[in-house]
Parts: sequence; structure tokens; C-alpha cells
Amino acid sequence: MENRTEINQLGEFGLIEHLTRDNDINRAETILSIGDDAAVIDHFGQQTVVSTDLLIERVHFDLSYFPLKHLGYKSVVVNLSDIYAMNAEPTQITLSLAFSNRFSIEALDEFYEGVYAACEKYNVDLVGGDTTSSQKGLLISVTAIGKIPEMKYVSRRGAGSNDLICVSGDLGAAYLGLQLLEREKRIFVESPGVQPDLGNRKHTIGRFLKPEPRADVIKWLAENNITPTSMIDLSDGLSSELLHLHKGSNKGLVVYEEKIPIHVETAELAEEFNINPLVSALNGGEDYELLFSVSQSDFEKIKNCALVSVIGHFTEEGGTAEVVTTANNKYALKAQGWNAFQK
Amino acid sequence: MENRTEINQLGEFGLIEHLTRDNDINRAETILSIGDDAAVIDHFGQQTVVSTDLLIERVHFDLSYFPLKHLGYKSVVVNLSDIYAMNAEPTQITLSLAFSNRFSIEALDEFYEGVYAACEKYNVDLVGGDTTSSQKGLLISVTAIGKIPEMKYVSRRGAGSNDLICVSGDLGAAYLGLQLLEREKRIFVESPGVQPDLGNRKHTIGRFLKPEPRADVIKWLAENNITPTSMIDLSDGLSSELLHLHKGSNKGLVVYEEKIPIHVETAELAEEFNINPLVSALNGGEDYELLFSVSQSDFEKIKNCALVSVIGHFTEEGGTAEVVTTANNKYALKAQGWNAFQK
Repeated sequence: MENRTEINQLGEFGLIEHLTRDNDINRAETILSIGDDAAVIDHFGQQTVVSTDLLIERVHFDLSYFPLKHLGYKSVVVNLSDIYAMNAEPTQITLSLAFSNRFSIEALDEFYEGVYAACEKYNVDLVGGDTTSSQKGLLISVTAIGKIPEMKYVSRRGAGSNDLICVSGDLGAAYLGLQLLEREKRIFVESPGVQPDLGNRKHTIGRFLKPEPRADVIKWLAENNITPTSMIDLSDGLSSELLHLHKGSNKGLVVYEEKIPIHVETAELAEEFNINPLVSALNGGEDYELLFSVSQSDFEKIKNCALVSVIGHFTEEGGTAEVVTTANNKYALKAQGWNAFQK
Repeated sequence: MENRTEINQLGEFGLIEHLTRDNDINRAETILSIGDDAAVIDHFGQQTVVSTDLLIERVHFDLSYFPLKHLGYKSVVVNLSDIYAMNAEPTQITLSLAFSNRFSIEALDEFYEGVYAACEKYNVDLVGGDTTSSQKGLLISVTAIGKIPEMKYVSRRGAGSNDLICVSGDLGAAYLGLQLLEREKRIFVESPGVQPDLGNRKHTIGRFLKPEPRADVIKWLAENNITPTSMIDLSDGLSSELLHLHKGSNKGLVVYEEKIPIHVETAELAEEFNINPLVSALNGGEDYELLFSVSQSDFEKIKNCALVSVIGHFTEEGGTAEVVTTANNKYALKAQGWNAFQK
């Protein structure tokens, strides 16, 4: 039988000490970390970038198929993704947790294993946080901090007319991974004896359970002297994020269905679920890819980059945002992404 | 009848726009605020200070007697208090909220009124956050950011032997304010017709419902060229915080009951509740006063400061932490502060 240590055996300070006993400080910028009223960070003349996310059990995640270690990892990386989307380098995070007495120390340890794995992989220090009890379920609040040379950040606002629209990786996979996990959960609830049939769908399930922020894309852009004119990370689906860049720049834009990168496994699963794969790419969320615009003059450099697809371009001031299908039909883009309030 | 607008009439982006429509940016350091993947802050060569807190309905606050506007205000100032406790100046906050469909737009507006009032009073910009639905109740996560000249922060670790122990304001008031509100709530629940009898206890109730962080003390110290050797804010009670400074410095310390500042209303209410006022000062939480140590050589400057009381001093390396009562008895200090996990 598994060990179960109750949280109240340690008390709040004991718990914090326990959870942070292996917390290393690796960055020269981290002057003072966990254990004081606040952490102290030196950005050595660079500007500071800050982003925060709140993740709520049964709104954002379902622990019946989400391993705690993966959840810890994902809670960190979705915030790092926002920092990369500013063209910045993440440097520190704070992590606050609230949990009911359903959670044991061993469960929290698993969660923190994932947190520390993400911090190590992306060279980020955990420098503060808060732990408390909740009325119900697990609540996770992460704030990520990053650095960027003075006025070099990339916002959602800067796209120019005729700038190319680029996206990293492939889209819609996380949404189909989620559909698959939800289907197997329903089957399990109805017939508990039946083993889940995940059909070796590693790409889609992996993209949902263990997304990676695109640090590699940011690095490639820097190495190739490409500064995006605008950028955003894909958390709510391509449509929703394109509309943010459209609104931010006040430029029209057009993207082409045939150019939108969709993984073969995503396409297969979409067929299985009778979903148009374009719809999963446009409206499925949690891809955590980067969507950005670059000047036409960067086309020669970017066209052969394996990490990135060019899917369209911006158009004139005040223009509309459109998608052109493979059958050459034009539609106005609509945001139908995740909306926690519509559930 | 009061207006009630449902959250889902606006959607997530509409809600964020609504809540932040009057959000002003006042600080030169705030380069980019709400509306992008992250905010961008320039600290102009100063170091960055970061602190975060999670507040959960029915664990940290009870909406049956806590007005939403006050709750918004308090959520901000308890975080600013941590920044001041580093001897730093708060500059920005991020605010994340999760709430059930029990909350209307009007209720959120009230909460944000308090948030903006605190931001304005302490000259802090709201630069980011997240809003989502919760399974149950209201959850508030605030991260505060501040600035401090290079290596000038004051941690919990620096007290020297013989340093004086100082505390601002008066202690134990918030705890008794809470007791009073809880008593009147119980009476109301048992006999809904009976009006609450708060007996004009403005000081104690005010200290609980609308605490103010001690920006004035930090300013006075700077103006008088006093740099504390260690500092912490009083959120968990004097005992608990003294033990943090004791542990941080590895020095013994002694404080004197007769020197501990207790407001006359706190003493009266303590008698009414049959609580020793010393116990409310030592173990009551949420005073948000500053506890700090200064060198003996600063005594002449500090002894006439109306904002601060000298309540004891540090002793030898490795010594114990003790309180001396008015009757001249000595007790070892024990932390019996708030502990969300013991409830």
C-alpha cells in the first residue's frame, strides 16, 4: 500500500520546508529566494516581464487522467510560454497552491517533482509562493518572471501590412488528446472493468499532458537575427490568437487552411471523432505553440526552418481577418476558443 | 432591487475589458500592462522584489461580514506589506480571481473598486492577471512587485547581538476585530432578527477589515537614515514573526510584555472576550505592522518616533527567544499563529 502522510502532521512552515528542501538556485539573478517576505531579483539593467495564470481543478484539469507530476510540469510551462511569447527569457517563478485534505504529502511531492523538472529544463528558479488549504479541490497559481533587453519585447500590437504570419510546430493535437482522454474516462465510468484504449496516440496525448514551451523557436529566431513584429502563444486556439494580433495591429489578415500544420495523428483522431481537423486547429486550445508575424524580408531565412510554418500574411490597415479553405472558400475568423465561463 | 449582470453575458475577454476599463498606468516603470502575454517593467538598474499570496473564501475570509470592496483593498495591501517588509517600494501587482456563478459583474466591480483604491493610495500599477470560474467560492491570488536599490533589501536574517527589536503601531487589534465579527455572525445565524452589536469598535474592526501597510514607517526610517538590520511584516502574530527573526539571525532575543503596544480598545475587547491581551498580540494574526531590528546606535533617533515602539532586544549567538511578563516571569516564545491547515 502506498504511504499517505497527512499535511497537518507538518504544519504550514514544515510543509513549505519539506516541499522546497531540494529547491536549487541556479541563476545569478536570483539574489534572495524562498524563506523571506519576498524574493529579490537582479535583472542587471534588463527589463522585467511578468505573467500569471490560475489553474482550478475540474475547470482546467481533471485529476482522474492527469498525473500530478505532469500537472506540476504543465503549470510551470504554460506560464513560461507567455514569457517566451514576449521574446523574453524566463528566469524565475512563484507557485501558490491551495488543496483540500484529500491531498497527502506524497501527492504534493509528485506535483513538485514535475514543477522542479520544468524549472530545471528551462533554467528557471522557484523563488516564492504560498500554500494553504482549499474548500474544494486543487488550485494552482503560478507567476512567471523573465528578462529582456531594454525595449526589445515583442507585443501583440506590432504587425505591419504584408508581414508574414508564422506558427511553430503543429496545431490541434492537444485538443484531440483531451477528447481521447475524456472518451476513455466516460467509458471507464460506465464500465469500470474496461481498460482505457488510448490506441498508442502518443503525440496528441503527450501534447495535452506534457506540453513544451517553444524556447527552441525563440533561440532559432535570435540566432537568425529575426525579430518578430508581433507574437502571442497559442493557449486558446489559432482563431482566438489571430484575432488578438488582428485587433492589436488593426491590420487585416488572411491565413490558408492548406498551410496550417496538422500532425498525421491529429488528422487520424479527428476523423475518428468526426471533427474537421481545421476546426481543432482553429478552435482547440492548449497547443502552446508560438504565433508571430515577421517582415517579408525575413521570408528567405524562415522558409526552410523546420520549426515554423508560414500560414498567411497581414493585409491593409483596418482590413478583416479571414481564413481561406482548401476548397478556396473565404470565411471571417471567429474566436470560439476555451472559455471557462461557458462551461 | 440591485442590478445583477451574469458573468457569462460578457465572456472572458469582455469581462477583463470591463474590469480593467478604468485601470490607469501611473508609474514610469510600467512599460506594458494588461492586454498582452505578459507585462513589461523597467526597474532602471534597481533590484526587483516579488511576493505572492493566495486568499481562499472560508479559509481566509468570510463574505457574510467582509464587504467585497474591503476585501479587494485588503488583498492588495497584504501583499504590499510584504514588499515594504523588504524595505522596498511596491510598484506593480498582478491579480488573479476565480469565482463561482454566485458572483455577478456588480459584485466583481465592488471588489475591483477596493483593488483600485489600494493601487491609487500606494501608487502601484495593476499590470496583469487571470480570471476564471471556480468550483466553489472566491479565490484571490495577488503577486506584488517592488524595487530596491542594489543589495539594499532587508531580509529576516540580519539581526546582530544587542540590536533593538522594534514594532510599528499596535498589536492584537485585528484578531479581536475578527472575534467580534464572528460573535455577531453567530448571533445573527441563531436569531436573524437581531441587529449586529459592533459597539462602535472602529479601531479593532477597522484593523481587520481595512488594514494599511506601513509605508509611512518605511518612509520615516529612510528620512532618518535608519536601515533595519532585519525586518518582517506581522501576518501570523508577533510570536511567530519573532521566531522567524530569531531563526534567521541565530541570535537569542527577549521582548517585554509591558513594552508591547496594545490599543485601549483592544484591551477592552480582550476583557469582554476573556482573552489575555498579550495573547492576542503574540498569537493573533493579520496586524500587518512591521517588526524589525535596528542597531543600538539608532536608539536616540528611534525612541521618540511615535510610529514605533522598542519592545526588546537581541541577545547572544545561539540564545533562546523569550518574553518577560509584567509580573517578571520568563517564557520561551512559541508560534501559535494562524495555520490554515489546523482548521
